[in-house]
Amino acid sequence: MLSTKFAIPDIIFGHGSITHLPQCAQRVGARRIFFVSDKGLEEAGWVDRVRGILRANNLDCVYFNNVNSNPRDSQVHEGARLYREEGCDVIIALGGGSPMDAAKGIGIIVGNGGQIRDYEGANRIMRPLPPMILIPSTAGSSSDISQYCIITDVKRQVKMSIISRSLVPNISIIDPQILVTQNRSLILAASIDALAHAVESYVSKLASPFTEMQALKAIDLITANILPAAEEKDIKALEQLSIAATAAGMSFSNAGLGSLHAIAHSLGGIYDVLHGWVHPVLLPSVMRYNMPSCVEKMGDIGRQIAGARLCPDKHTAQIGIDTLEQLFKDLNLNTQLRQLLPDKSTLEDICKTATHDACHLTNPRAADWQDLMSICEEAW
Amino acid sequence: MLSTKFAIPDIIFGHGSITHLPQCAQRVGARRIFFVSDKGLEEAGWVDRVRGILRANNLDCVYFNNVNSNPRDSQVHEGARLYREEGCDVIIALGGGSPMDAAKGIGIIVGNGGQIRDYEGANRIMRPLPPMILIPSTAGSSSDISQYCIITDVKRQVKMSIISRSLVPNISIIDPQILVTQNRSLILAASIDALAHAVESYVSKLASPFTEMQALKAIDLITANILPAAEEKDIKALEQLSIAATAAGMSFSNAGLGSLHAIAHSLGGIYDVLHGWVHPVLLPSVMRYNMPSCVEKMGDIGRQIAGARLCPDKHTAQIGIDTLEQLFKDLNLNTQLRQLLPDKSTLEDICKTATHDACHLTNPRAADWQDLMSICEEAW
Repeated sequence: MLSTKFAIPDIIFGHGSITHLPQCAQRVGARRIFFVSDKGLEEAGWVDRVRGILRANNLDCVYFNNVNSNPRDSQVHEGARLYREEGCDVIIALGGGSPMDAAKGIGIIVGNGGQIRDYEGANRIMRPLPPMILIPSTAGSSSDISQYCIITDVKRQVKMSIISRSLVPNISIIDPQILVTQNRSLILAASIDALAHAVESYVSKLASPFTEMQALKAIDLITANILPAAEEKDIKALEQLSIAATAAGMSFSNAGLGSLHAIAHSLGGIYDVLHGWVHPVLLPSVMRYNMPSCVEKMGDIGRQIAGARLCPDKHTAQIGIDTLEQLFKDLNLNTQLRQLLPDKSTLEDICKTATHDACHLTNPRAADWQDLMSICEEAW
Repeated sequence: MLSTKFAIPDIIFGHGSITHLPQCAQRVGARRIFFVSDKGLEEAGWVDRVRGILRANNLDCVYFNNVNSNPRDSQVHEGARLYREEGCDVIIALGGGSPMDAAKGIGIIVGNGGQIRDYEGANRIMRPLPPMILIPSTAGSSSDISQYCIITDVKRQVKMSIISRSLVPNISIIDPQILVTQNRSLILAASIDALAHAVESYVSKLASPFTEMQALKAIDLITANILPAAEEKDIKALEQLSIAATAAGMSFSNAGLGSLHAIAHSLGGIYDVLHGWVHPVLLPSVMRYNMPSCVEKMGDIGRQIAGARLCPDKHTAQIGIDTLEQLFKDLNLNTQLRQLLPDKSTLEDICKTATHDACHLTNPRAADWQDLMSICEEAW
């Protein structure tokens, strides 16, 4: 095996783990905290809860909430300006992928200067970021675990993938009770994003035994718990999804993703679609496209999803994909691309841009923009 | 689930990963490196290889090799004195558990002062250690992954367990080609130590989903690869053992161990027995003792070891233990305590001391010294 790297933050996981926040902030040397979250978390009461916990421990903080659901370059620059003006020294973010990615973007700029687009791609960040503590409110993006940061360049209409070891935060605090405040739709979008992370990273060109075991565990837990979590908000099922998303995060952060995420980023740069809604549409088609390059691994995925143990790999893989497609339909999710896009006019641009996304590099089967077009056509 | 913590170093794994050492040393700010290894690694040529790699990158280093196979308090203090005299700023260790634990002990003293016995137990280290990069030469101790450090207090005849988050090194560089220079006996002792780490941590009171998946994977890989690795030095099997030991390290470092390791430490304080040779003698008896408290999990372990899928847990667990016992016999290992100890005169002391070892706290079934005596009698 060629040399492979595996890096994750320190993780504190479980009910009530949010109460460890002050101790964590002190461990990374916080004097003046830059706290990033959003309006949804304010309404759910979690922003006040976190500020209260910090205040009770004499930890001073500056609050920033100008974050969209697909965070924008201008918001990152505004946050960085505020961070500097206020003389902050540590970043804490509470939220789904958007506030966490915005926080990472702010960290990049205050540590390295310049414009956020200067860091697009892999390994472009040369200087350290301030210490970061991330608290996810969804079991999906795993930005709290990963070396990824996705920011929209509004002018170019591109969701930029920024990937660097220095984007792994110092500490991730995962408290499943925060998930209970999410609605059905957000729980589903996040879980399916985590499922896509697990599937794409399991077959990625950079997968290693350390990432593979995490990916399979995540697929197993998500397929077993997505229904009771979304339909009944079963707290045990939500906790299992949270474990799954964390495992999927450990996997994709170190193994990379694939063409599904490349297309999802490219599409999300033009249309303000919730990231997780792209996967029920495109995941089965991308899996079918990749099958010839990784039929054995697709068989492993099929065994996790559908439990079909005695069939040959190709058949098991096919059963896995069919089962996924049926699951998305049973959940009443959009499964056709025409339900997300107004027409086909932007398809070619979306596919061309996707081939430049860093996620596309680790897809197990080579694909040019025409191949991505055929995937999109199949899903249309 | 109550709150649980999971922390591991950055890992660089694979053939040739040793060549990343200079880059890693620079990342942690090395100017003058304190390099710990031992005579076995000198004879195998690996010490010169590492010094050569550092020298070629203008990295200055002070070499220390006064390390026993069960490293002693006096050796730690001697190393710390040399580190300070030479004005070093980073520690690199190459070796099995002994050089790595000695290096950690040296790090504790240079960062915190005092005597090494002041830090015995869990969470007694208050100030940071110098940056550490560890390079394991055996697939067993996983000191390169763990928050454990085992040092012998010669006067008290006690192997002290020192456990702290700050003992997790910054970077672990795992290069399976270093394992090829080990002989059959060392490969077996190390693999069985890793197996014991996996089994004890899987049933530990502090096990979490993050540690459990690592433990089961380790058990699976060790039972599948121990024979070809030890008997034929099959390079692929050695690589799999290396993955297994790393996974077992992630598990036990975060979940803790149990009474087997408590007895092994206590016994090793009096008799200079290779740590790994205690497990073939005591592991089956400890597993039988623990069974009533964790029969379901022992069933999982049995399924990994013996593949018996259709039996009830208790039966599967028993098959797993029997299969392990037979494996140790087939390997011509000592499986009776009387083969390690001259007589029973120290047994009571060994068991009493074991109940004070930090590893004993996380054993799934409570045990006083008389219970440990009955385990030892069964294995006599």
